[in-house]
Amino acid sequence: MELDVAIIGCGPAGLSAAINAKIRKKTVKVFGTEVCSAKLESAPWVENYLGMQTTGTELGAMYLRHFTDMGLKIHRTRVDTIVSTGTGFMVAAKGEIYEARTIILATGISQTTYLPGERDFVGRGISYCGTCDGPLYTGKKVAVIGYTAEAVEEAKFLATIASLVYYIPQGTDMTGPHPNIEVVHGRPIGILGEVSLTRLALRDKELRVDGVFIFRETTPVEQILADLELSQGAVHVDRQMATNIPGVFAAGDCTGRPFQLAKAVGEGAVAGLSAAAYLDKRS
Amino acid sequence: MELDVAIIGCGPAGLSAAINAKIRKKTVKVFGTEVCSAKLESAPWVENYLGMQTTGTELGAMYLRHFTDMGLKIHRTRVDTIVSTGTGFMVAAKGEIYEARTIILATGISQTTYLPGERDFVGRGISYCGTCDGPLYTGKKVAVIGYTAEAVEEAKFLATIASLVYYIPQGTDMTGPHPNIEVVHGRPIGILGEVSLTRLALRDKELRVDGVFIFRETTPVEQILADLELSQGAVHVDRQMATNIPGVFAAGDCTGRPFQLAKAVGEGAVAGLSAAAYLDKRS
Repeated sequence: MELDVAIIGCGPAGLSAAINAKIRKKTVKVFGTEVCSAKLESAPWVENYLGMQTTGTELGAMYLRHFTDMGLKIHRTRVDTIVSTGTGFMVAAKGEIYEARTIILATGISQTTYLPGERDFVGRGISYCGTCDGPLYTGKKVAVIGYTAEAVEEAKFLATIASLVYYIPQGTDMTGPHPNIEVVHGRPIGILGEVSLTRLALRDKELRVDGVFIFRETTPVEQILADLELSQGAVHVDRQMATNIPGVFAAGDCTGRPFQLAKAVGEGAVAGLSAAAYLDKRS
Repeated sequence: MELDVAIIGCGPAGLSAAINAKIRKKTVKVFGTEVCSAKLESAPWVENYLGMQTTGTELGAMYLRHFTDMGLKIHRTRVDTIVSTGTGFMVAAKGEIYEARTIILATGISQTTYLPGERDFVGRGISYCGTCDGPLYTGKKVAVIGYTAEAVEEAKFLATIASLVYYIPQGTDMTGPHPNIEVVHGRPIGILGEVSLTRLALRDKELRVDGVFIFRETTPVEQILADLELSQGAVHVDRQMATNIPGVFAAGDCTGRPFQLAKAVGEGAVAGLSAAAYLDKRS
């Protein structure tokens, strides 16, 4: 079944986009990770969302209740990549593929601290998705840096393709020996190479590899969707929250400052309505 | 006392702007008419403002309570005109003058139906403010069209300047005779003239006048503040809610579609923070 709207992110912007698209009778799926908005949930007191003055936890609960009351739920899977098909989009999330006619990006601000050199080798040895890029490393050596638990499964999957997988746990240990997997302990300090990536440097050793897969809680939004235009590090949007890619909208912290709840909720509403209007025009 | 921020309008965008500017420790004055948001107050059920599903009346009351809890109140006076002084602004509201370093326009959508020809003679015979433009008509004949009660007072004031005031009540009768005032009943159907205004046409007669003062519940925002840039009939703003005039911000329905609470509240928050940031940069 093709979705009308796939929403990436379950923070305030994502939930607001969802309820608004749902009110306009669109089919909606919200993709979220375990924690929808760390910032909201840890706020001791919120006093600038008009109408409610309460704790971040309580406000988050009220948001979720509203969303749930409308028959919506969060699909707890991290989206790895989104590809345009010309008439719509394919959303790849942990090996599952969903089709959607429009996309709303509500991924928040990326808290990612990149490894030195990491951004220089994206698409030339650095990857954030085993399913997507694994086949490129058939018979080759790769490293998997695991900041999140899913890295263990990804490493095992990659071990069925690559000749050798170095697994570098960052608080995500792997139990038992696995064929083609060598666990290496150490803190990654940089990515090295010339035309393409050749080495992963750890604090006290270097590994010769052809690819490095990194699994973190958040993937920078511009790495989920190719050709997305940024402006000062944020997703570039117009006043209707449309990005440079037709059918793709964005809302909330990922569109830039100020990083505020009211802005996120307002932009989410506009993005939800814009996606609905976009669909209505083409139906 | 010079205000940090003068906010024109007491609907959701204006209140949200106010609480955000107040949190940033700015002095704020909110100018509002009797009804802050007719649309909100008449909404039987609001289901798309994330976190609360309730009636418009109740939501409006929650908004106002939040605003009041923060020590803010609404100054119930209609703003007639705003003039830039180079370093700030003068806000004229029913004969009172306030100074403000920044302005946030949150005037909503104008429901005004113009009289035929009205917009052609703004500044050349049409006026919305007796105090501001009265002296231009010293010894001349003017007409006052009264849709609101204040028109009666304005007509009396103008009668002290003009040689004759035709008062045309539109549901706002004047009791007793007044020097220099002639009450004329009839429905206005157009404004006539060549280089400047010369006649007001009523359904069954025409009045030869040099000026026509019109008093309605709402004044179109672009007539409050000269040189304000519009885009498709709405106030043109950037992503920080800045207008084309430095120090003037706008939020809510006056900035264009979609006309939604969440958008108004979000834009109000951004405008409030932008005004605060603008002040901080210059202090």
